[in-house]
Amino acid sequence: MKFTKMEGIGNDYIYIDNRDHFFDYDPAFITKISDRHMGIGADGLIALENSDKYDFKMRMFNADGSEGQMCGNGIRCLAKFAYDNKLTDKTHLEFETKAGKRIVDLILEDGQVTGATVDMGVPSSKVKDLPMVYDAEECINGEFVVGGKRYRGTAISVGNPHIVMFTKHLPEDIETDGFKIEHSGVFPEKVNVEFVEVIDRNHLKMRVWERGSGETLACGTGACATVYAAILENKIDTTCDVELLGGHLSITYRDGHLFMTGQARTTFIGEVMEENYVR
Amino acid sequence: MKFTKMEGIGNDYIYIDNRDHFFDYDPAFITKISDRHMGIGADGLIALENSDKYDFKMRMFNADGSEGQMCGNGIRCLAKFAYDNKLTDKTHLEFETKAGKRIVDLILEDGQVTGATVDMGVPSSKVKDLPMVYDAEECINGEFVVGGKRYRGTAISVGNPHIVMFTKHLPEDIETDGFKIEHSGVFPEKVNVEFVEVIDRNHLKMRVWERGSGETLACGTGACATVYAAILENKIDTTCDVELLGGHLSITYRDGHLFMTGQARTTFIGEVMEENYVR
Repeated sequence: MKFTKMEGIGNDYIYIDNRDHFFDYDPAFITKISDRHMGIGADGLIALENSDKYDFKMRMFNADGSEGQMCGNGIRCLAKFAYDNKLTDKTHLEFETKAGKRIVDLILEDGQVTGATVDMGVPSSKVKDLPMVYDAEECINGEFVVGGKRYRGTAISVGNPHIVMFTKHLPEDIETDGFKIEHSGVFPEKVNVEFVEVIDRNHLKMRVWERGSGETLACGTGACATVYAAILENKIDTTCDVELLGGHLSITYRDGHLFMTGQARTTFIGEVMEENYVR
Repeated sequence: MKFTKMEGIGNDYIYIDNRDHFFDYDPAFITKISDRHMGIGADGLIALENSDKYDFKMRMFNADGSEGQMCGNGIRCLAKFAYDNKLTDKTHLEFETKAGKRIVDLILEDGQVTGATVDMGVPSSKVKDLPMVYDAEECINGEFVVGGKRYRGTAISVGNPHIVMFTKHLPEDIETDGFKIEHSGVFPEKVNVEFVEVIDRNHLKMRVWERGSGETLACGTGACATVYAAILENKIDTTCDVELLGGHLSITYRDGHLFMTGQARTTFIGEVMEENYVR
């Protein structure tokens, strides 16, 4: 199986062209090749398929073989993958994903795709959309209690659930609070937890605790949820640079949509022999 | 740059054929491609070169770009790499390494190399060879004190220094003791720390804290040092199966030498574009 390894601010996936459905997405095989010592090593696998409605379809799989809905850092790379492999000459691409339609605009420098802007859709601050157990329709800088400790946060859904917590300084350790909040009964389907420091009205710094994964280098939906929460709390303007452990994203809120801009890079190309994984 | 990614019981390196010296071993580039998110991802890079004296020369580099001496799990893979790429048809191979000559015998199943036996050389129990600050020539099940805590261990050099500590049951956490012992003044050039449980006279189970790396899935020299220590303490016979987190090794002590047998596997082949790492 030929593949391309790509990363968007540290989110790294194995990319394949599966328009002819040669690969069956066997979860056991995806788990094996995602292993960082015994396999190729990745956050998972993202495949390009044909779509009946749009330019292409995106299929994404986590490192445990389960299918995911959408990945903002991943779809930038997937659009670059399609362009670099001459499967399209468009720079404005429409993708079918499990989270609905997503539009990607490629950024070219000297004819090379270096990044992309993704329309991440319409955010919601309704607690029922996360869901979150809360006695009001919205939780904006609202208080909630987990394990006897009081927290303040803003609950946002951008297709998946987030609780955004602004702090004076980024904490050294986000695991203790992140894990407790993720698994608390306040968020029946669990939650992604963002810890955010406001540098100025155009610059946020954040760390993210991802549902099911723990702390990660970067989370595109987390950065989007954070910017929307910061706008609702009037901490920033409508375009903002977000600094994550893995790199920078620029997020703009316009016409009710969040647009995310960031880099996309090929780290290497490769070929994996399936028979080497039978043992 | 074309490469092959291989692993020996979880020790994974990027393997290249550098007989024509096309690659200059730039430490910054090795560091970048060893990164598990932003690069290929590996414990480091191992290259095959020509040798004036033996079949081939082994060069190995850690993930931080520094040059290492020898890696027992790595040299099995390097021998398979030479054979698989038809650079030799011998199955008995002599390598020049920074730690001296090493002899590798390939194991073939249905014409495929599945593993190899490496002559890991002559071990030493002289404390001056580690070095270790101790008031006798040898430290066999000897007591030493670190940070006010008493430990018992056997000090072995197999080219690099090891302190082997037998315990009734493998500890849950080896970091606390591993780190303290590694950095204590008892071992002026630091030390690898092995925690070992004796299952029976032909079977050991161990975890290893590697000097400069922390806990790793496997350490070939650590398994060799452990078997030699267990023989000196009359806990095992001269052939023993060693179970590590990453897999199994079989170690035999014969004619004063330690012979290590284990698997070697190709995980994928690839090509990396150097221009993608300038940023």
